[in-house]
Amino acid sequence: MAHGGGGKLMHQLIGKMFLPVFGGAAHEAPHDASVFEIGGQRVAFTTDSFVVRPLFFPGGDLGSLAVHGTVNDLAMAGARPLYLSAGFILEEGLPMETLWRLVSSMQQAAQKAGVQIITGDTKVVDKGKGDGMYINTAGVGVVGHGLKIAPSSVRPGDVILVNGDLGRHGMAIMAVREGLSFESAIESDSAPLAESVLALLRAGLEIHCLRDLTRGGLTSVLNEIAEASALRLQVEEKLIPVRQDVRAACEILGLDPLQVACEGRFAIFLPERDAARALEVLRGQPDAAGACRVGEVTEQAGARVLLKSLLGTQRILDMASGEQLPRIC
Amino acid sequence: MAHGGGGKLMHQLIGKMFLPVFGGAAHEAPHDASVFEIGGQRVAFTTDSFVVRPLFFPGGDLGSLAVHGTVNDLAMAGARPLYLSAGFILEEGLPMETLWRLVSSMQQAAQKAGVQIITGDTKVVDKGKGDGMYINTAGVGVVGHGLKIAPSSVRPGDVILVNGDLGRHGMAIMAVREGLSFESAIESDSAPLAESVLALLRAGLEIHCLRDLTRGGLTSVLNEIAEASALRLQVEEKLIPVRQDVRAACEILGLDPLQVACEGRFAIFLPERDAARALEVLRGQPDAAGACRVGEVTEQAGARVLLKSLLGTQRILDMASGEQLPRIC
Repeated sequence: MAHGGGGKLMHQLIGKMFLPVFGGAAHEAPHDASVFEIGGQRVAFTTDSFVVRPLFFPGGDLGSLAVHGTVNDLAMAGARPLYLSAGFILEEGLPMETLWRLVSSMQQAAQKAGVQIITGDTKVVDKGKGDGMYINTAGVGVVGHGLKIAPSSVRPGDVILVNGDLGRHGMAIMAVREGLSFESAIESDSAPLAESVLALLRAGLEIHCLRDLTRGGLTSVLNEIAEASALRLQVEEKLIPVRQDVRAACEILGLDPLQVACEGRFAIFLPERDAARALEVLRGQPDAAGACRVGEVTEQAGARVLLKSLLGTQRILDMASGEQLPRIC
Repeated sequence: MAHGGGGKLMHQLIGKMFLPVFGGAAHEAPHDASVFEIGGQRVAFTTDSFVVRPLFFPGGDLGSLAVHGTVNDLAMAGARPLYLSAGFILEEGLPMETLWRLVSSMQQAAQKAGVQIITGDTKVVDKGKGDGMYINTAGVGVVGHGLKIAPSSVRPGDVILVNGDLGRHGMAIMAVREGLSFESAIESDSAPLAESVLALLRAGLEIHCLRDLTRGGLTSVLNEIAEASALRLQVEEKLIPVRQDVRAACEILGLDPLQVACEGRFAIFLPERDAARALEVLRGQPDAAGACRVGEVTEQAGARVLLKSLLGTQRILDMASGEQLPRIC
């Protein structure tokens, strides 16, 4: 079970089993989307399955999540998402109204994200064998930029930006699951990110790396990048935006907000000189008013992530392992 | 549950719910793959989820099936399959050895089919919520021909060919499930079909329509084409190849071999003048030595399929409905 949470065990599973078997020539490194060329055009391709419970939660549902997740994986390659596939695994007995609501939500999310769902498949499994409904989406997009957006492009001196407050998606899910109630419900941050990324690219910024902060949250992403680039990353707790209600819910459940999944948040690595302009561009995008700088890539070698805490102390921000990470994306 | 079998109820579900919501401009008609243009190149895109039990069966397993299924959906659009995605939903407690065997089988099947699996995703669900393992694959291929391969291209006078004996995949699965034993096990026909299709295209034949004979078997495909083209199709039972052991297993289980799923068989619709050459090309392909003509499209209007039985009588070959169709693909 611990293999599904997005932490160390998952990385080991992917590293040991899937990459040696599947990693074709087109697949440079473990990344959100693979890029290949068709007709002289660079094309990004990615897939994700969505198994989150409950099916409906404040700020979203499994259907919109399945669209945003794949759109965002394409966006992290700097691609303009164009087409999605949708594979439904339905458990016998799923109310048709539930299916209809989720399908309609997908359609709305696709429209909002500027993509078309053009191919699909439906399978029904025996009652008790499917937990209501699972959705897989795969996506195809076109890469218009000439940059190499990848962990290996990250350089000492790069700054690390995020597009808003962290942890809302995960805590929206967990609050429902655990029956926590607050004055107002925590709403998921689930949202499509392609427009923000394309706006950054249009502004001519030298983007080195992009990552959506899904499973394992900011902590997992920073550790992946540190490992892949063999560089030391430094973030400051006081710069990292976490809403008070999210922080409170995390405290009650014993979770670290920096390890909680988002579905509409991403980290941007780019040179210091482009940081101010990038923040200006991001803050002009929907849902990114709270974009800010959270840290930088240091000159020091050594693949690790350091957090300067609110108290001014410094500690290693290690990747979460196994069961600490509830499956919420 | 009856919605998953590939018969009438599934067609209604797709027709009523998914097509009005999703059917974008790029999606001409309900078909195995959707085609769009990127960089002046026509690209086919498709997806399929694989939920068959048992995970291993004579002649194949869930892994190779997940590759063949999507490769074949691309092939039915006349596309050369290039890249696949793989989305795994694993049930907690699945032995790692099982996963490893299936992943290795996918890799071998991909290599044999000339495709690369370049992007993937793994989710783990709670024990009891996933039935071992589900695999979704999506596929991208390039369309090199200028034909319109679609039910709407089918014409009166077209002949109907198949590339070999029918029903082996379904009965391989059912024999294991039902504990039937024969002198030698019935082996699934699961195989990649792209090379056969590309050989037909290279031969310059005027292919009107292609369909793989998966859920619902030949009967379902013929009824779909009859409905979509508003033409009457006529097939002859004595021309339709079904192996003796498959026929016997069908009789024991009360199944009609013409409704049983194959995973390496397809139907070809093309003009009479091209039929002999098509059969010659097919018979030069692996697993297609038994390619033959099974019927034709008649001049008569009226969307229905007529079967001339072994006794010389004629009856309507109606699409199976619901529970008669075990989910075996």
